Amino acid sequence: MRALIFDGRLQLRSDYPLPAVPPGEALIRTHLAGICNTDLEIMRGYMDFRGVLGHEFVGEVVQVEGAPELVGRRVVGEINAFCGVCPTCRRGDVTHCPQRTTLGIRGRDGTMADYFTLPIPALHTVPETVPDEWAVFTEPLAAALEITERLHIRPTQRVVVLGDGKLGLLIAQVLQLTGCDLAVVGRYAHKLAILARRGIRTHPVDDPPLPGADVVVEATGRAEGFALARRLLRPRGTLVLKSTFHGHAEIDTSALVVDELHVLGSRCGPFAPALRLLEQQLINVAALIEHVYPLDEGLVAFAHAARPGALKILLAAGEAASRLKLSAGAPAG
Amino acid sequence: MRALIFDGRLQLRSDYPLPAVPPGEALIRTHLAGICNTDLEIMRGYMDFRGVLGHEFVGEVVQVEGAPELVGRRVVGEINAFCGVCPTCRRGDVTHCPQRTTLGIRGRDGTMADYFTLPIPALHTVPETVPDEWAVFTEPLAAALEITERLHIRPTQRVVVLGDGKLGLLIAQVLQLTGCDLAVVGRYAHKLAILARRGIRTHPVDDPPLPGADVVVEATGRAEGFALARRLLRPRGTLVLKSTFHGHAEIDTSALVVDELHVLGSRCGPFAPALRLLEQQLINVAALIEHVYPLDEGLVAFAHAARPGALKILLAAGEAASRLKLSAGAPAG
Repeated sequence: MRALIFDGRLQLRSDYPLPAVPPGEALIRTHLAGICNTDLEIMRGYMDFRGVLGHEFVGEVVQVEGAPELVGRRVVGEINAFCGVCPTCRRGDVTHCPQRTTLGIRGRDGTMADYFTLPIPALHTVPETVPDEWAVFTEPLAAALEITERLHIRPTQRVVVLGDGKLGLLIAQVLQLTGCDLAVVGRYAHKLAILARRGIRTHPVDDPPLPGADVVVEATGRAEGFALARRLLRPRGTLVLKSTFHGHAEIDTSALVVDELHVLGSRCGPFAPALRLLEQQLINVAALIEHVYPLDEGLVAFAHAARPGALKILLAAGEAASRLKLSAGAPAG
Repeated sequence: MRALIFDGRLQLRSDYPLPAVPPGEALIRTHLAGICNTDLEIMRGYMDFRGVLGHEFVGEVVQVEGAPELVGRRVVGEINAFCGVCPTCRRGDVTHCPQRTTLGIRGRDGTMADYFTLPIPALHTVPETVPDEWAVFTEPLAAALEITERLHIRPTQRVVVLGDGKLGLLIAQVLQLTGCDLAVVGRYAHKLAILARRGIRTHPVDDPPLPGADVVVEATGRAEGFALARRLLRPRGTLVLKSTFHGHAEIDTSALVVDELHVLGSRCGPFAPALRLLEQQLINVAALIEHVYPLDEGLVAFAHAARPGALKILLAAGEAASRLKLSAGAPAG
């Protein structure tokens, strides 16, 4: 089968072996896979990952033992495969299982291939009214929802999101729904405009909001984001860290002590509410799609995704790619 | 001026004295006033109130000392007038000031009149894009937001709202925005349909959702709501009480102990986020309006509001009433 792999360099292989399906897992045919900044960070050395890239997807179950009702269903999936029996799993923190593998990130081939496997409990069927192009955003939208899952954001609070990347745009839309006094700081006028059209206040980096925010979400993907976040927070405020990148950030930890700040790291989130918000059309993900490439053009797609300011680049496999070719080849008008 | 007063019975007076404007308060000309279930409960004895009814409004500042920029501005207003200096106020709980008066509910004439007064800090100007017919819902929408202000509702939680009254319909819309797994139990198909059109799951009273909810919001306005709420909650779940009515409810307090439930009373809420959600069109209040009567027809309006299953009845004064007559008198087509 075809697969986009990283083994020190990015390669498109056409002869990658079809994955074996372990007991308790499902074989999934990829419809769409999304390129995430994490994929770009992996190519810089993040997580030391080698194998098929990709953790964002929507696909179709083609083979599974013990759950025949899933065959033919359209699914999205949580990216952490956990043991389910260790103390961490038993207290409910399955995404932190020390034995976990993570789709396309750690110890498990990812979604940028014709086929891949995931454990059955990780799968969520996609409601019929949610098209593939929205469903492929379930994973990053869930990551945005992890903020409101872990932190009580009050409607009366002043909240600043730093970063207008793809995740920042999803986080902003999720936080807007709390009714809070929200401002987003970003570098790209075309991305901030997506939020402004939804009534969200936006600021260019050189004209940030006034200090005194109750909560600042750092989603710039850059080490420099931390200093601005610190400056915008009120004493005893909460700093939510969402960026993961290869390397270290230098942090003024004394400032955390003096201002008695609360720092909260936040990563993968809950899929069920993400699917609900997509189904109820409370989040606009369509505006975040910059381009859809067939899997065969994966290298070009990655180059596009790495351009500064790029929005979401999707890869289409199987029938989704055929539809793409059809619509590209259709006569205009 | 005209005023709808309750002095043991409901009366429309045309010779009610124009209110004196105390220092620090604004004289407001009413555009629209909403009839709330609390107004109906006051007529049954709740709060022993005597005077001009009404606490929901949108109006225009016509006279104010010390804040000339407010004159001519369209405003809504918080209903509790507080002292600002007692220990309760100083710890931030101004809506609980023991010296407070409450618009049309306690020690202060209300909004169902041509004019009324409110302290300047209670006023919020209404964004231009929010029409009167939406703005008049700011107060009950704020009351709905008080739930998410006081309680962290997680996107992964299962939440049930009991009651499809006007407040219940607003609460359901606010809670939907959290992404939580939401179900609403109600008595009236036409009211539940408003929520179903927004993708919210609804249940008739005789077919409630399965037990095991993390949070149940009791907004039925009936003492019987409590027993169903108890039955639907999981052990260690949270029961939010929103109903206020004249009289007592019988409560099985041992059940609270055995199931280790958390009970949270919740009343008035924050106006700024309510105005934000209206401006951003994240809440549909227009669907909740059943009829708009001119203030002159206040008695008919109250009779209508008291009909079982009635949605929001509004009273229009001044120019809003003239517009009403014009549109009622306009030739069809």
